[in-house]
Amino acid sequence: MNNILCIYSRFWLRHLVFMGAGAMGEIKHLVVVKFKEGVVVEEIIKGMEKLVTEVDLVKSFEWGQDTEGHEMLTQGFTHSFAMTFDKKEDYAAFQSHPSHVEYSATFSAAIEKIVVLCFPCVRVKPTG
Amino acid sequence: MNNILCIYSRFWLRHLVFMGAGAMGEIKHLVVVKFKEGVVVEEIIKGMEKLVTEVDLVKSFEWGQDTEGHEMLTQGFTHSFAMTFDKKEDYAAFQSHPSHVEYSATFSAAIEKIVVLCFPCVRVKPTG
Repeated sequence: MNNILCIYSRFWLRHLVFMGAGAMGEIKHLVVVKFKEGVVVEEIIKGMEKLVTEVDLVKSFEWGQDTEGHEMLTQGFTHSFAMTFDKKEDYAAFQSHPSHVEYSATFSAAIEKIVVLCFPCVRVKPTG
Repeated sequence: MNNILCIYSRFWLRHLVFMGAGAMGEIKHLVVVKFKEGVVVEEIIKGMEKLVTEVDLVKSFEWGQDTEGHEMLTQGFTHSFAMTFDKKEDYAAFQSHPSHVEYSATFSAAIEKIVVLCFPCVRVKPTG
């Protein structure tokens, strides 16, 4: 049992090192939005969670709803969605993926305003 | 030597499990900006990297410069900066930290427009 744990632990350590090495080329797709009035935001988010779960090209996905609410700072934007891709080619393939194209129509219809940035992610901290 | 590697691996495995458990309560501080013309952006970013490296309250820090450049999507914004905190209290303490207060004056003077969101981070993927 102890040996199995040891082998399992080593697998994770190697996996960690691999993740650290790969992090340098990651592409982040950041979307900041304000939804239209009357939109059932939970449904839109549920659809996005389904999309990123089903499409393997998306390496990680995080989202959040602003809780501070300083209008001067948020400029009326309320939600942030961030997807990470291993490389630019994965991001490009995701853009033209049928599931993404289909979902985009629903998403676009729900938003009042949007900012989209796409960039190679520079991770300063943690350094490991 | 093999035993040391094994113990070291187990330490990392435990650390990983701990990180996974803590991730649920994380607070993300997201800043999207367009800098004023003439600003030496590299200096501003260098200052931010120094700040987050020195202040332990900041758990992680990532930034990036948009490479797609679709004005209709970026709305003129060019850079994204994202800091993660373990809990809301850490974020509050960071806001009033002397180093942050000092840096904020420099940063504010350099930006033409800004969107700031602060939210509990929902991590959908990876799930582990």
